Amino acid sequence: MAHRTPLLTSATLDGECGATIMLKSESFQRSGSFKFRGAYNRLSQLTDRERVAGVVAYSSGNHGAAVALSARLLGIPAVIVVPATASALKLAAIAGYGAQLRSYDPATERREEVAAAIAAERSLTIIRPFDDYAVMAGQGTVGLELADQAGQLDLVLAPVGGGGLIAGVATAVKGLQPGVAIIGVEPEGAGDTSQSLRAGHRVAIGEPATIADGLRASQPGELTFPINARLLADVVTVPESAIIETMRFCFTRLKIVIEPSGAVALAALRAGLVPAVGRVGVVLSGGNIDPADFAGLLAS
Amino acid sequence: MAHRTPLLTSATLDGECGATIMLKSESFQRSGSFKFRGAYNRLSQLTDRERVAGVVAYSSGNHGAAVALSARLLGIPAVIVVPATASALKLAAIAGYGAQLRSYDPATERREEVAAAIAAERSLTIIRPFDDYAVMAGQGTVGLELADQAGQLDLVLAPVGGGGLIAGVATAVKGLQPGVAIIGVEPEGAGDTSQSLRAGHRVAIGEPATIADGLRASQPGELTFPINARLLADVVTVPESAIIETMRFCFTRLKIVIEPSGAVALAALRAGLVPAVGRVGVVLSGGNIDPADFAGLLAS
Repeated sequence: MAHRTPLLTSATLDGECGATIMLKSESFQRSGSFKFRGAYNRLSQLTDRERVAGVVAYSSGNHGAAVALSARLLGIPAVIVVPATASALKLAAIAGYGAQLRSYDPATERREEVAAAIAAERSLTIIRPFDDYAVMAGQGTVGLELADQAGQLDLVLAPVGGGGLIAGVATAVKGLQPGVAIIGVEPEGAGDTSQSLRAGHRVAIGEPATIADGLRASQPGELTFPINARLLADVVTVPESAIIETMRFCFTRLKIVIEPSGAVALAALRAGLVPAVGRVGVVLSGGNIDPADFAGLLAS
Repeated sequence: MAHRTPLLTSATLDGECGATIMLKSESFQRSGSFKFRGAYNRLSQLTDRERVAGVVAYSSGNHGAAVALSARLLGIPAVIVVPATASALKLAAIAGYGAQLRSYDPATERREEVAAAIAAERSLTIIRPFDDYAVMAGQGTVGLELADQAGQLDLVLAPVGGGGLIAGVATAVKGLQPGVAIIGVEPEGAGDTSQSLRAGHRVAIGEPATIADGLRASQPGELTFPINARLLADVVTVPESAIIETMRFCFTRLKIVIEPSGAVALAALRAGLVPAVGRVGVVLSGGNIDPADFAGLLAS
């Protein structure tokens, strides 16, 4: 059901980094990000009774859109809990996939509690954004395809928010090629996994502050963290300026649209925060950004 | 030497148009547009003596970049004649490929004459942007690949400036699949080929006025026009608003960067100016646009 997304290459990029860089471009995935893989995998494993009742998810972004699209494809009713402050454009995308929107006030309500209340009231299944093995397994198909398309790899870089994408990718890639180093990348203002790895346990940071709206997790997942602690060689952080510069590079040189969260892994490589050697797979995780927001970021 | 560019598809687009749309995305070509194909083919056919002396081309845009890159790959000296008013960014791209820049004042000098004078003085070969069979043949490889990747086609749409791209594409596609209708698309403000086809001979229009800077030809080519008059089913024109709307669609839905000239063929289809039936190949001819110019157009 998911698209097999292309592996893009660029002679300019290889020259700049001194390595062979292969970009797994999930911006071309259905719903515009890798999130479709995990959401569809999770929803396709519901029982008949669960399917009839429906699902609920909390997200105004890529997870919300991915659950909404997956639910439509499977004929499952879906409620997406979104902040009242979310952009009209993102809400239109979710509503366009046929999901029911339920807004909440982020100043006075917690989205997990809103979703839990709706789930209890209507017997809906909650679809978590990352802390779920079926979701992680779905995201892991990014890694399966990458290993198949790229052949032997030396290094794989992927963004880290709650840690579901990289947990799935690391499991898949290291299962096939045990010698590959997997390195995660977070924005400097949302370095919860980086700090947790150094502390040796899950730590919560204050309010995450980054333009990478898909990576604003304040704590690693309960299920994702042990996997990542075991499989990742490292998690590094990148400054906002490097994210914007890489979005610009993707636009002007690669001619592709990458959202801030989608650009962090390549930004770390281009900024020299991770040494590039040999054959490097990089996950560009999504391309959902409003043109006006894009213009604003690049002008900043 | 040229990239075999991908054929992109979109369920959204197919639903909107009621046909199977396949997008031949030359935005992913070397130098960012189809122009590399024609320039490289032409330069690779120079004699040894011509190679040593070098080449000259007049263009501040895609043809200039394509000749500069082709010349570098073949080890041929290149001079690109550019207007003094050209954007610093485009000039940097051409200079980045190692070509020598020669600027002229568009208010007082004609670029063809500047190039001819340099060519005569230094025994350089002039590389014309479209009115050259080797250039047309190179552009025709877009059609060869399209026919191979798409299988049986009913309709092919491509942009028309001087007419070199579509002459090559029509020759290739109709050579392989004689029943395919080939339709060209021009901006309303640069409809010289459309008007010439109706007149039955080449007519010159006044100063072309369009945001599609690669399609600002005021008269069809002497060599391209007879081919196009014989092979094209029609040439239609699109308003500027449809071009911008399609650039926005490519950004928000397809996650690709398409310049105004590159968007006209898809714009004609999406605006209903060409009836979409069956299997339709559409050439997205290039993706070279400065992010600030892109933002300005989409905000207009």
